Amino acid sequence: MDAYPHLCQIVDPTDLHKFSDKELHEVAKEVRQAILDKVSQTGGHLSSNLGTVELTVALYAAYSIPPDKVVWDTGHQAYPHKLLTGRLPRFETLRKHKGLSGFLKREENVHDVFGAGHAGTAISAAVGFAVARDQAGTDEKVVAVTGDAAICSGMCWEALNHGGELKTDMTVVLNDNRMSIAPNVGAMTQYFTRLRARPDLQDAAQRAKTMIQRIGGPAERVAAGLRHGLTHYFAPEETGTIFEEMGWEYIGPVDGHNLDVMLDIFRNVRQLPGPVFVHAITVKGKGYEVAEEDSRKWHGVAPFDLEAHELVKSAGAVAYTQAFGDVAVEIAQADPKVVAITAAMPDGTGLTRFQKEIPERYYDTGIAEQHAVTFAAGLAAGGMRPLCSIYSTFLQRGFDQVLHDVCIQNLPVRFFMDRAGLVGDDGPTHHGAFDISYLACIPNMVLLAPRDTTELAEMSRWMAGYDNGPTAIRYPRGTSDDRLPESRTPISFGKAETLRTGKDLTIVAVGSMVSPAWQTALALEAEGIDCSVINARWVKPIDFDTIFADAARTGRLLLVEENARIGGFGQMVRDEMHERGLSVKSDVMALPDKFIEHGAQPLIRGDLGLDEAGIAAKARALVKGTKATRGT
Amino acid sequence: MDAYPHLCQIVDPTDLHKFSDKELHEVAKEVRQAILDKVSQTGGHLSSNLGTVELTVALYAAYSIPPDKVVWDTGHQAYPHKLLTGRLPRFETLRKHKGLSGFLKREENVHDVFGAGHAGTAISAAVGFAVARDQAGTDEKVVAVTGDAAICSGMCWEALNHGGELKTDMTVVLNDNRMSIAPNVGAMTQYFTRLRARPDLQDAAQRAKTMIQRIGGPAERVAAGLRHGLTHYFAPEETGTIFEEMGWEYIGPVDGHNLDVMLDIFRNVRQLPGPVFVHAITVKGKGYEVAEEDSRKWHGVAPFDLEAHELVKSAGAVAYTQAFGDVAVEIAQADPKVVAITAAMPDGTGLTRFQKEIPERYYDTGIAEQHAVTFAAGLAAGGMRPLCSIYSTFLQRGFDQVLHDVCIQNLPVRFFMDRAGLVGDDGPTHHGAFDISYLACIPNMVLLAPRDTTELAEMSRWMAGYDNGPTAIRYPRGTSDDRLPESRTPISFGKAETLRTGKDLTIVAVGSMVSPAWQTALALEAEGIDCSVINARWVKPIDFDTIFADAARTGRLLLVEENARIGGFGQMVRDEMHERGLSVKSDVMALPDKFIEHGAQPLIRGDLGLDEAGIAAKARALVKGTKATRGT
Repeated sequence: MDAYPHLCQIVDPTDLHKFSDKELHEVAKEVRQAILDKVSQTGGHLSSNLGTVELTVALYAAYSIPPDKVVWDTGHQAYPHKLLTGRLPRFETLRKHKGLSGFLKREENVHDVFGAGHAGTAISAAVGFAVARDQAGTDEKVVAVTGDAAICSGMCWEALNHGGELKTDMTVVLNDNRMSIAPNVGAMTQYFTRLRARPDLQDAAQRAKTMIQRIGGPAERVAAGLRHGLTHYFAPEETGTIFEEMGWEYIGPVDGHNLDVMLDIFRNVRQLPGPVFVHAITVKGKGYEVAEEDSRKWHGVAPFDLEAHELVKSAGAVAYTQAFGDVAVEIAQADPKVVAITAAMPDGTGLTRFQKEIPERYYDTGIAEQHAVTFAAGLAAGGMRPLCSIYSTFLQRGFDQVLHDVCIQNLPVRFFMDRAGLVGDDGPTHHGAFDISYLACIPNMVLLAPRDTTELAEMSRWMAGYDNGPTAIRYPRGTSDDRLPESRTPISFGKAETLRTGKDLTIVAVGSMVSPAWQTALALEAEGIDCSVINARWVKPIDFDTIFADAARTGRLLLVEENARIGGFGQMVRDEMHERGLSVKSDVMALPDKFIEHGAQPLIRGDLGLDEAGIAAKARALVKGTKATRGT
Repeated sequence: MDAYPHLCQIVDPTDLHKFSDKELHEVAKEVRQAILDKVSQTGGHLSSNLGTVELTVALYAAYSIPPDKVVWDTGHQAYPHKLLTGRLPRFETLRKHKGLSGFLKREENVHDVFGAGHAGTAISAAVGFAVARDQAGTDEKVVAVTGDAAICSGMCWEALNHGGELKTDMTVVLNDNRMSIAPNVGAMTQYFTRLRARPDLQDAAQRAKTMIQRIGGPAERVAAGLRHGLTHYFAPEETGTIFEEMGWEYIGPVDGHNLDVMLDIFRNVRQLPGPVFVHAITVKGKGYEVAEEDSRKWHGVAPFDLEAHELVKSAGAVAYTQAFGDVAVEIAQADPKVVAITAAMPDGTGLTRFQKEIPERYYDTGIAEQHAVTFAAGLAAGGMRPLCSIYSTFLQRGFDQVLHDVCIQNLPVRFFMDRAGLVGDDGPTHHGAFDISYLACIPNMVLLAPRDTTELAEMSRWMAGYDNGPTAIRYPRGTSDDRLPESRTPISFGKAETLRTGKDLTIVAVGSMVSPAWQTALALEAEGIDCSVINARWVKPIDFDTIFADAARTGRLLLVEENARIGGFGQMVRDEMHERGLSVKSDVMALPDKFIEHGAQPLIRGDLGLDEAGIAAKARALVKGTKATRGT
């Protein structure tokens, strides 16, 4: 802790009030150093958190927290917040099982007033807090901090529209770091660029400081001065108007790394009633040269060598992601009607290669899953064949659009859902635990799950040729197991793949669970238990004929999937068993009806029994007629 | 057809090109008259369609459709579109089973290029069509027509942001009728009001016409003139900027009922490349005095007396809606922490009384379900007890927010889902067919379904006292059956209600299906079949103990619900039957895995077997050991 003499004294943000402005500079330095020291050991989000150091120190020094509340959007810009709320001693547990979450979490700390993982929620939540405050008749301040990528998502506009109408006392801080995960897209980004395009931002910030000092005096005068004098002061006359037209006082752009200016701004804004919008310009990776130069590379990182400035290895295994990226290019090269769509995740979805090689058919909508899905529906209605690549958890944002615009109209949009199942370190906001449940219930939808990266490519090629309606494929984060049999049956609509035939038990596994099911069968052979292993391949329509023919023969059926049990594959199979009057002993292995915490994939899969040991235990119990434990 | 001498000649919109501008005035008159004549007979959406008559005639006369495409938002402003695309002869079948849809539908007509029911989808779809056109290298025009309420929904902003960036050739027409279903809310509405607040709109329109004529000449000059000269011409300097900042040429506001001006505008705009935004002011109910005066009352109507200007009866039965409206007021009066939230549907959700009696705790977010849900989550995190009332089908828009912001954080938001199950005339975009599937899979969610309006009130009171986490209740459109037993057991967490005990069969029904199940049991008694009837009450957690105890006794179990079978109540019960090793004959009655067309509720329920006759047939088959038909 000697390394952080000031920071280690801070348990609550109000502890910042003990320091002089000069000492706050030291605090900021220590926060930046702590982020570098800790993240280089644990891995995590680096660039965006280096960008919010001064902003956070200034905000927390200027406000009184508690009772004031700051709602952070998304969370991976909130490490400084974590460090200023007493979590320095536990920071090396970041993103580790049972350790600190990489995002915000109400259970973790009283100052995490609203959890976040998906982008764009903070302003809505802050409007809620502000209205709750108004109803209670108290006078604490409410601030939302959001980013330039998040603010382009539709719900932010809905919230700005509502907050601007309500005229409630709250502040939105736009942490504009010029690009978020990927270089930002959309007209708003161009708009922000125009706002930023001022000859001398630094000078403006200095002038602002002088002006604020000049106004001085009682709170009312400061407020009035800011309202009537400073609005439009920083920005040219014609800028800032979108937010003003929405009913917000616009202040900015200001240099988010100039601690003194930010302190002045926040101390004054805190006294301004009514909705205020502060536009701060920050630099991703600020203070760590290589990260400033390539903030995208240094966005989410594995542990790295701080001095050598080198990533020890890339963050996370990306085999499925890359397999999709490669086959997407192949499919598009073969068919000029194919276009690719991502919602601000070219790297995460593997579309970077597509973007590079076929830029004229690559579309990045920004963080706008709703639009991305209906845009894809419009493209399909217009005769194109869109590949719409959105993580399983983020496609939840486009659920109505999948149902209302794609499936009701039976349009051939192809959805590629990376990160289906347990994602590991990102935790409950990011697990793709529900896509079978929320997609299988929709008529016309066809849903697939590959056993490995080779099958992902084969299924993708099949989807590329299926124009009868919508299709979706779910695949996990990470690598696939190359110990599976190399021989493959061709992809055929609605047909499962029987990997081996045994006499004691039928194991049917979905996607990511095929490999552990296969390994289990090999292991059980040594125990004298002879299992069939069926790769389900199709989650909708399910190949009941193949499954039940085998199960009728073995008399026992074990269904394994990495999706919520409710509405999942196992329930659908069991329903149909009844329907056909098939009476066999069965068990379902799936995600339990609770949110799963963060932790390495193997660890949390093991905890839930969704690994070889867990499947083997269930298999033994079924074969030996003892029902081991209650199915999860 | 004599009544519509011009209109009856129009089969395709290009037929409009045969008429002179003078004759187009006659066409517009006939379209308005046809709407009045037909809707007074069939019922349907009246006010909004009277407002788009001139706009549609002008648009379709100015463009060449096909190949040009017009994408309509929501659809209940698109009756003029239906009349100008050859559907006059079938118009009396509007909203009738197997007749014309009240919304847009690709299967219905080649000019319904993109279906619509939920608001806000048109711009996204139009961006898709425009990009598909660009990829194909053709040059047809793409227009989206949206409304002032719809455009406040987040996905419109996402689409404007993307379209503005792409700079593709398309036009958005904003049909600004000042209020949509309910008086509009939000800062954008105030912004539109400022845009409208011009001393002499009519005069401006005339000046515009003159100017356009003056520019004249070749298309390039017109385009250039419009771009550089007319932008900002209609509106004062400081207006129009939001759309301009988003990359769109803004033209307006223009009088949407001045056919000559609209013709000029559209003929010129059609030649303008790049994204253009036309802001037209219209009047709901235009040309039918009583509807102009009270457009909300005349929004959606039952058949009415055209001459007497009187609604014969109100549109649709609203017993459940009113029961919720009344109990919401009661709950709020008892607890100052209770607030009510609607997303632009105060009438439809029954919150009008709440709005009137407790305005300070009533919040209308506009058509912004995503924000509404996270706003509610913020309120709950801030200590309030929000009642969030959103139709089952519209809550699909807030699915991710329910999961990510409410359920992961286990916040006590109470969701009231009116229109769960089959809604009838509004058809597939509006049936509440999926809420059990998309909510039951989410951990922490508690889900109820009342058997009648009295139970809706009782359950709502229970929800009001449950602070442990989120709750949701689903109830159907319409009235409840007062032939159910009056005696009731109190609402108790997770406890079903046994209405009668029989020896031959256990019928478990969810919500709207309890009444037909009960009536079936009475009828079957005469046939010597003695049924238990259990009112499930809880869809999550399900009262398996009560259900299975009864089913174990009778040996037969029939599960009935008005939700998609996949992910529904029946599947969950059957899964648990296996889990507990209960072996009884069972059958599941639910909505089949297809989208259900529009038609009167009793008719389509009957078609699907979800009525007394259907339940009786399944019950007989189960008891007699013949499996009648395959379960739906």
